[in-house]
Amino acid sequence: MADAVEVSNKQIILKNYVTGFPKESDLEVKITTTRLKVPEATQNAILVKNLYLSCDPYMRNRMSNHQGSYVESFTPGSPITGYGVSKVIDSTHPDFKNDDLVWGFTGWEEYSLIKATQSLFKIQHKEVPLSYYTGILGMAGMTAYVGFYEICSPKKGETVFISAASGAVGQLVGQFAKLLGCYVVGSAGTKEKVDLLKNKFGFDEAFNYKEEEDLNAALKRYFPDGIDIYFENVGGKMLEAVLLNMRIHGRIAVCGMISQYNLEKQEGVQNMFSLISKRIRMQGFLVGDHYHLYPKFLEMILPHIKEGKVNYVEDIAQGLESAPAALIGLFSGRNVGKQLVVVAHE
Amino acid sequence: MADAVEVSNKQIILKNYVTGFPKESDLEVKITTTRLKVPEATQNAILVKNLYLSCDPYMRNRMSNHQGSYVESFTPGSPITGYGVSKVIDSTHPDFKNDDLVWGFTGWEEYSLIKATQSLFKIQHKEVPLSYYTGILGMAGMTAYVGFYEICSPKKGETVFISAASGAVGQLVGQFAKLLGCYVVGSAGTKEKVDLLKNKFGFDEAFNYKEEEDLNAALKRYFPDGIDIYFENVGGKMLEAVLLNMRIHGRIAVCGMISQYNLEKQEGVQNMFSLISKRIRMQGFLVGDHYHLYPKFLEMILPHIKEGKVNYVEDIAQGLESAPAALIGLFSGRNVGKQLVVVAHE
Repeated sequence: MADAVEVSNKQIILKNYVTGFPKESDLEVKITTTRLKVPEATQNAILVKNLYLSCDPYMRNRMSNHQGSYVESFTPGSPITGYGVSKVIDSTHPDFKNDDLVWGFTGWEEYSLIKATQSLFKIQHKEVPLSYYTGILGMAGMTAYVGFYEICSPKKGETVFISAASGAVGQLVGQFAKLLGCYVVGSAGTKEKVDLLKNKFGFDEAFNYKEEEDLNAALKRYFPDGIDIYFENVGGKMLEAVLLNMRIHGRIAVCGMISQYNLEKQEGVQNMFSLISKRIRMQGFLVGDHYHLYPKFLEMILPHIKEGKVNYVEDIAQGLESAPAALIGLFSGRNVGKQLVVVAHE
Repeated sequence: MADAVEVSNKQIILKNYVTGFPKESDLEVKITTTRLKVPEATQNAILVKNLYLSCDPYMRNRMSNHQGSYVESFTPGSPITGYGVSKVIDSTHPDFKNDDLVWGFTGWEEYSLIKATQSLFKIQHKEVPLSYYTGILGMAGMTAYVGFYEICSPKKGETVFISAASGAVGQLVGQFAKLLGCYVVGSAGTKEKVDLLKNKFGFDEAFNYKEEEDLNAALKRYFPDGIDIYFENVGGKMLEAVLLNMRIHGRIAVCGMISQYNLEKQEGVQNMFSLISKRIRMQGFLVGDHYHLYPKFLEMILPHIKEGKVNYVEDIAQGLESAPAALIGLFSGRNVGKQLVVVAHE
């Protein structure tokens, strides 16, 4: 293709940096054009057609203007970026050829030029839905795997509590814990999600935190002998209550604190002395430090998916136009299961 | 001694459970009597003469009426208990004989009957001051050793911050870190203590936290590239500021939170999201879980003491009458170095 065709390229743009709770109107859909070819002078790059985009809580941080954080801020006026599944349609990189399927960082737009190809994984296993690579077979799956097996040091028979348990990561952590023979309880924010935890994901118990006046009492009800492992996705008041209910030598994997992301000032967490009296290990982690384990993870998870031992629920928004609402909905818990956006089918 | 002599036995009694800041008047000196012999029917017990008593921050918790804590509450009307150095004057236990010197849990009184002998260590090395077994060679020394080497995973060249650094534990942690080749900064609450840290204990830097309006700015001044290891003795606002200044993959050993012990309600700790963004491991510990390492610790520390490579400062109160003031003084930071009480010389 000496003269590549120029096509329309719909993009999701961040209008301005966000403070407080983000709104759909902080994002806008913009129509631009692009040529379906890597520019001549650009070596080691690929031009992809984006198929599925992943909506993830950590993206809230990128909507703020901050320096020195663990993730870069988005650039106002430009399309936002995130994890997605894409198909290569042109390549100047020796490792990628046309029609390769990849997952990793891409733009929220129809077509993206990707120079940072080191963050991409080639998709080898296509016998599962491709959209799974935005979640269970992508960043969320790896987060659950690393967080549970590497950070929590779990043992058969231990008691496990997971907050935001019906989310992309939580639903998997709970199922991993059940596979290991743990007692597993999850919290979520609607009756529908609580039902999902108990009936679809096989949690032993689940509760709607919004219906509990006293989180400490709720945890005591489900964990009369305490919690060995807490998989932390929400922070704030839930963490405070959990600290009171941990068992001696308990472990807390700190994966996310979604209750804090839209506050101007983080809430203070009480009951920190429990760390000493109960000899708790509390450890934050980022999946990005652990991608060398991805092949090992795939080897474990693919058979579980094929044999139906692990269930997975997606909340699928159709079309880029629906992407702003899908992303913002994460922060009010509107999604049920893993939120993703279909940009195009293969 | 068929008919052991009955002698006067001065005791320090907790009058009532304490809420808020403890006062000297919460304790009283009481004169009772005791026979200098283990009662006939009591097997496996020893009668000791107490020589030195240790004043430790954790004792504040025992002055409150609580259940289910990691330490038992004291019993109002009875002598309080704590770590001490004692001399055996009668024994019905095959492992102990008269004139043995021991350290471990004893009563705040002149003579104690000890049935829980499993918590005692026999003192074998008498070429150092016996009082050292209330601190550097006892619980505080083991706490510093375990906390630094086992919990902090320290490496040569790392940056280390210690709060309450001139206390019994802090002064040792700092010296261990210097011996390993770390950059070490400590905080304390008076100019005298800051001088001690720099001039006696060889810290690279030290500051008076009471003179800093902005703890975050103070930490940035001493750690422009961040903190690898924080040895936590105080909690509250200091922990909040430290969380902002930790480096990626930093470690926090949570040893104590003395700033919180006299509050009706613990302060909330902000900046907890740093645990994730910086992948921090924060781990509480109690020395009681680690006493199997005591022989290994002695092997390491004794040569350092004898060769003058480790310094140690004691704040010595004379006589049981001075014990209430010595203990209460801990919570306002009145002591300089390890606070102990001499009950009797050998």
